Amino acid sequence: MTYLVNDSLTFADETVHGMVAANRQYIQEVRGGVVRSTASPRGEVSLVIGGGSGHFPIFSGWVGPGMAHGAVCGNIFASPSSSKVESVVRAADNGGGTLVVIGNYAGDLVQFGAAAELLGKEGHDVRIVTTSDDIASNTPDKADDRRGIAGDICVVKVAGAAVASGMSLDQAEAVSKRANDRTRSLGVAFSGCTLPGAAEPLFTVEEGTYALGLGIHGEPGLSTHPMKPAAEIARDLIEAILEEEPERGKDGYEGRVTVLVNGLGATTYEELFVLYNTVSQILESRGFTIVQPLVGEHGTSLDMAGASVTVMFLDEELEKLWTAPADTPGYKLGSVTPAEGHRDVAQDAATQIPAGSPESAAQASCVVGVLEALAATARDNEVAWGKLDSVAGDGDHGRAVLLGSTGALASARESVDAGAGIATLLTRAGQAWSDESGGASGGLWGSALATIGSALSDADAATDEQLATAVAAGARSFAATGGAQPGDKTIVDAANPFAEALGKAIASGEELPDAWAAGAAAAATGANLTADLVARKGRAKTHGSDSLGHPDPGATSFGGSWPPRRRR
Amino acid sequence: MTYLVNDSLTFADETVHGMVAANRQYIQEVRGGVVRSTASPRGEVSLVIGGGSGHFPIFSGWVGPGMAHGAVCGNIFASPSSSKVESVVRAADNGGGTLVVIGNYAGDLVQFGAAAELLGKEGHDVRIVTTSDDIASNTPDKADDRRGIAGDICVVKVAGAAVASGMSLDQAEAVSKRANDRTRSLGVAFSGCTLPGAAEPLFTVEEGTYALGLGIHGEPGLSTHPMKPAAEIARDLIEAILEEEPERGKDGYEGRVTVLVNGLGATTYEELFVLYNTVSQILESRGFTIVQPLVGEHGTSLDMAGASVTVMFLDEELEKLWTAPADTPGYKLGSVTPAEGHRDVAQDAATQIPAGSPESAAQASCVVGVLEALAATARDNEVAWGKLDSVAGDGDHGRAVLLGSTGALASARESVDAGAGIATLLTRAGQAWSDESGGASGGLWGSALATIGSALSDADAATDEQLATAVAAGARSFAATGGAQPGDKTIVDAANPFAEALGKAIASGEELPDAWAAGAAAAATGANLTADLVARKGRAKTHGSDSLGHPDPGATSFGGSWPPRRRR
Repeated sequence: MTYLVNDSLTFADETVHGMVAANRQYIQEVRGGVVRSTASPRGEVSLVIGGGSGHFPIFSGWVGPGMAHGAVCGNIFASPSSSKVESVVRAADNGGGTLVVIGNYAGDLVQFGAAAELLGKEGHDVRIVTTSDDIASNTPDKADDRRGIAGDICVVKVAGAAVASGMSLDQAEAVSKRANDRTRSLGVAFSGCTLPGAAEPLFTVEEGTYALGLGIHGEPGLSTHPMKPAAEIARDLIEAILEEEPERGKDGYEGRVTVLVNGLGATTYEELFVLYNTVSQILESRGFTIVQPLVGEHGTSLDMAGASVTVMFLDEELEKLWTAPADTPGYKLGSVTPAEGHRDVAQDAATQIPAGSPESAAQASCVVGVLEALAATARDNEVAWGKLDSVAGDGDHGRAVLLGSTGALASARESVDAGAGIATLLTRAGQAWSDESGGASGGLWGSALATIGSALSDADAATDEQLATAVAAGARSFAATGGAQPGDKTIVDAANPFAEALGKAIASGEELPDAWAAGAAAAATGANLTADLVARKGRAKTHGSDSLGHPDPGATSFGGSWPPRRRR
Repeated sequence: MTYLVNDSLTFADETVHGMVAANRQYIQEVRGGVVRSTASPRGEVSLVIGGGSGHFPIFSGWVGPGMAHGAVCGNIFASPSSSKVESVVRAADNGGGTLVVIGNYAGDLVQFGAAAELLGKEGHDVRIVTTSDDIASNTPDKADDRRGIAGDICVVKVAGAAVASGMSLDQAEAVSKRANDRTRSLGVAFSGCTLPGAAEPLFTVEEGTYALGLGIHGEPGLSTHPMKPAAEIARDLIEAILEEEPERGKDGYEGRVTVLVNGLGATTYEELFVLYNTVSQILESRGFTIVQPLVGEHGTSLDMAGASVTVMFLDEELEKLWTAPADTPGYKLGSVTPAEGHRDVAQDAATQIPAGSPESAAQASCVVGVLEALAATARDNEVAWGKLDSVAGDGDHGRAVLLGSTGALASARESVDAGAGIATLLTRAGQAWSDESGGASGGLWGSALATIGSALSDADAATDEQLATAVAAGARSFAATGGAQPGDKTIVDAANPFAEALGKAIASGEELPDAWAAGAAAAATGANLTADLVARKGRAKTHGSDSLGHPDPGATSFGGSWPPRRRR
């Protein structure tokens, strides 16, 4: 959905005004689009790009040293008029002729073609190179009829570096065409985009499915599939592209490539990195060398959700032009600070887990059962706890407890395998909980487990009294670490009653399992009280990112029948 | 919605792997996060940032020369554990102490605080500066309790430039705190974000409304409002921020500011530029000088739709640090190519509209009526034509014809006011149609109108025969410009029958209005034939971005009772 709109009819013009206002060091507005605000050498071939708007940084975002001299800005998804093209070409001219790079779309061909013809009659040499990287849009034998999508940046970057290097119009045209011939893209779409002022998306992708090869304006793609893991989507995309790999050892191509993972608008950077993770692994495992990859939004389609993978198969000249510096609003390459050599970082060596006495190791293995129950409870309640947390916090509490308890359990199993005692097992489990979960709750749980561990010993079996004392220290650590007081509606309201009831029952001679059950009952009462208070107070305003300031449903995972009755 | 996921539990780690794989020239992975891959001078204060993931480029995107030395990467929206913080601080250390900049969130305070305490015991001086720019999260008297949002980049950029300039830990800490004190943000949210693996968004914003001041994890904001124009939202945000403007002339502040318009994920760059357009106009009209503004995604919240405005009120030192060079994956500043002076572009002077003879001017004014009907038809059918176009094209046809016809009408009215003849009026109207509409259809309509105009004269009143001949030339221009043949299901199938029937009727002595009606009837027949053909053929696969390859519903706007009967 497009929300920030004044008038849909003036939207495209306003985007140009705002874009120029934010980037005056790079660009200035002229009729029909933008040109560089910095001067260029007399006689330099000018590079003009353009087409419909709605694809930032395509096209105005690529105007600046090392890339284009001007961009013609059409309306949203509509090619600009020939008179606008003519205006921008004239304003961008340095007296060395003009190279135009445009996507292979009907409207652009008509409008840019008409302007080139008119200017040609005046003796202004204008050459048009079209980009056609999208392999979904036609078969390999009709590669020139394909449309241009995200691979546009490969051709524009090469063309911009070519003209900046002083190439003639003939040379720049030839290398730009070769860049396009060597560039292949394929994308997926998860949802459509909405034109400014429209109430409905331009097209839709059925929920639970994705469209393979859909065009950036919703032009028909290859096929629709049920959703699958990111790694499989990555493999499908890269394998389809590699079917058109040029022959290695021919025409200067030796398996060196650049790779672009492009987001179409609503797809997160985080997802693009997950996608690139697999793409780069596949390419490297097949002997490709990746040069200067790009992962990000380098050609969007308003708020469309989707991503594409592009590969440019390099030769020496293409690589040199691809890695040349550029400084534009939407693409910058080349450090201002000289590289200072490589920083070597010593990675932590894995530490050995010390073995405990057989008695302490036997108690340690019993703790695994407690953590199994905790992790299972967290898995069953992940969604419910997340929903509770999203009322007052940021909704990650279910996920955090699941990550923490699962990490603690894995660590505890490692400890048992190494014959560790109960102190080591609990200390390591606390560290693992904190590491895997993070957040305030991860710190609290991690600290509590580690506190219990450090109150025990790897040498002797702990007595019931020692266990109760250790648990009480763990319970106190919640308040000590987080700063909450009883009645603040936090885990303290469950942990303190648990420890107190456990200690009393042990002191009165009850067996550990019964005493533990008494603690669980007291914890449940404490937690219920909290829930009751919340119901009366309604939604509390909190500003933290975590569960310090609101009831912690994780507290209820103390309940149940653990620990199992010990065999005596 | 988050779509590209393998396993929600490993998602955050995979984003770090992919991020590092794509940016090896900047960063390397260490336990708990990333540090620079380039060396730093011995003794330089190291800057470490961090917090929950899901906010790219916050935080790992800001590691590199001129900004941070390391970033601790927590799980999605969850602060990292203290042991991860400790690991990254150690790996990023240059022996000059560590400045930590984090958002003011409970989990981060606990975890980074614990690590700083532990490291402090070893004699490693770690100072923590918290960012608190979000004015929605607390009142001005409790400004230190506010949470940090997009304004983070202001503090991190200043801190990074400070340590790169060789400042001591004391100095860098002090200037970073001042940067935070001088930074204010306020945002709006239009829709929630979805955690990886979750089926539902973390929070929702009711359709047709926006939330003012909502936190980046859905933390409660100030209020909810019905949607309004972007310019009004911009004004509300900037005015709330300016209420906390420091006193001018005091503490080195003289009305110089930097401005950040930040997108939260799903909001398009185009919308951010529209928002910045108003923000910059308001600031400049009130005497502010804007230095090095930023418009884009500089701190996201997964796929949340929304935007924020940030202002940092500068003094001389803050401005110097803000504009210092930086080279990181997510933020780059400083041209590699020396600036080459300003390029002066001669803007076209407005051309005078020549007056025609009174007879030709009278005919010209009659054409305004035709264009009024055309624009009204386009307005009534914008949505319907867009829907038709979205089946085979990119859905912009309704918008394109509306923009074109409205532009042509405005131009025609100007021509009439200037006393222009019919030839000038039609030629200018064609140019305006093409300019305002763009695209293939804009070029076709513009060319048709201009062709009719150039077949007529500004000197004499055209005879009916001359009009019919001119219209026939205009009709032929559709095929000549677009390359379509009769039967290709384009506007040619309506325009040709229209011109033919008009010509025949005039030749057989009918009056112009009757002849025109005969043409309209023939056009309707031609268009219906086309529609019929489409219904039989079903959805056609096309690759163009425009209407050249499919039926043009705009053809029906030839229908109706125009031109009005001329007074004789």
